[in-house]
Amino acid sequence: MTALNPQGCPVTSFKAPTAPELAHDYLWRAHQRVPAKGEIGIFNRSHYEDVLVVRVHQLVPEERWKRRYDQINAWERMLVDEGTTIVKFFLAIDKDEQRRRFQERLDDPTKRWKFRMSDLEERKLWDAYRSAFEDALERCSTDWAPWYLIPANRGWFRNLTVAEILGDVLEELDPQYPPVEADVPKELRLE
Amino acid sequence: MTALNPQGCPVTSFKAPTAPELAHDYLWRAHQRVPAKGEIGIFNRSHYEDVLVVRVHQLVPEERWKRRYDQINAWERMLVDEGTTIVKFFLAIDKDEQRRRFQERLDDPTKRWKFRMSDLEERKLWDAYRSAFEDALERCSTDWAPWYLIPANRGWFRNLTVAEILGDVLEELDPQYPPVEADVPKELRLE
Repeated sequence: MTALNPQGCPVTSFKAPTAPELAHDYLWRAHQRVPAKGEIGIFNRSHYEDVLVVRVHQLVPEERWKRRYDQINAWERMLVDEGTTIVKFFLAIDKDEQRRRFQERLDDPTKRWKFRMSDLEERKLWDAYRSAFEDALERCSTDWAPWYLIPANRGWFRNLTVAEILGDVLEELDPQYPPVEADVPKELRLE
Repeated sequence: MTALNPQGCPVTSFKAPTAPELAHDYLWRAHQRVPAKGEIGIFNRSHYEDVLVVRVHQLVPEERWKRRYDQINAWERMLVDEGTTIVKFFLAIDKDEQRRRFQERLDDPTKRWKFRMSDLEERKLWDAYRSAFEDALERCSTDWAPWYLIPANRGWFRNLTVAEILGDVLEELDPQYPPVEADVPKELRLE
């Protein structure tokens, strides 16, 4: 995202929900961080955690997370109808690549802080996560808010693919400078 | 609401939207003020303004406000599925009663601040507002979030009716004290 000026590009990294977040519906915190008109908002993780980690760890009953696909589609549809453009990327790596990245974090002192023992526990749930991802992508890839599944083992390919898609989206959006005031003269004659 | 302790009863009076509110979808500000688990939240006005005053004054194109009934129903449904109880009251007065209330505000120096000349302009749009109210109540009175149309010419009748409905809702909700810790003794033996 280096090319974007953070003044117009709020980034939200969704973590484990806080107490106030847990005391509300799962879309509450996401809705608050939806970008305003004229902004590009980045969600790093999102409301999809509520059909992914929440499902894999059975944090709510099945009947409840199963309803969320339709809820998410309706909510995203409302955002789009009201003027937001939504693009969703799933950066997919395979199990071997994950192992390599974990090992790299152990080997490199400047990356070691990124590694947590709980990462190994989550890795054991690989197949459950894969099922959850597949359902989320299938149920919630809509005409108005498509999911893009990006092969992400190689960073250069991931970046190129995402950049090309975002380029197309921005050309389609065709952002314009704000209109000029009607009475602005072509030439200033100041004392 | 005098009987309720404000600590657990956040009240939101929705005014004309602020600049940040206008830069987001119309449900954005409402969603932020949805009460947390254990709270009773009061909305004085609400997201329904976006199919009422917005429609009457043509602040957005017709195709846009017409989509909002379904959007509102889906959003309220999500809130209910995720654990919120929604009760909506429309306090209806007739045109004669409105005239009396306006005159009373002019006659009583302690109420004169409530009167604005723009109230007279809005009164001219009575029929347009009535159509908008009728559609909102018809389209958005759902099994999961009913509208109650309360005859409100007389304050005592309005209060009694709303209180009875809220009483029924609270009995249905049947709120409980938080659970006691398992190891709390029946009798304290303190030094």
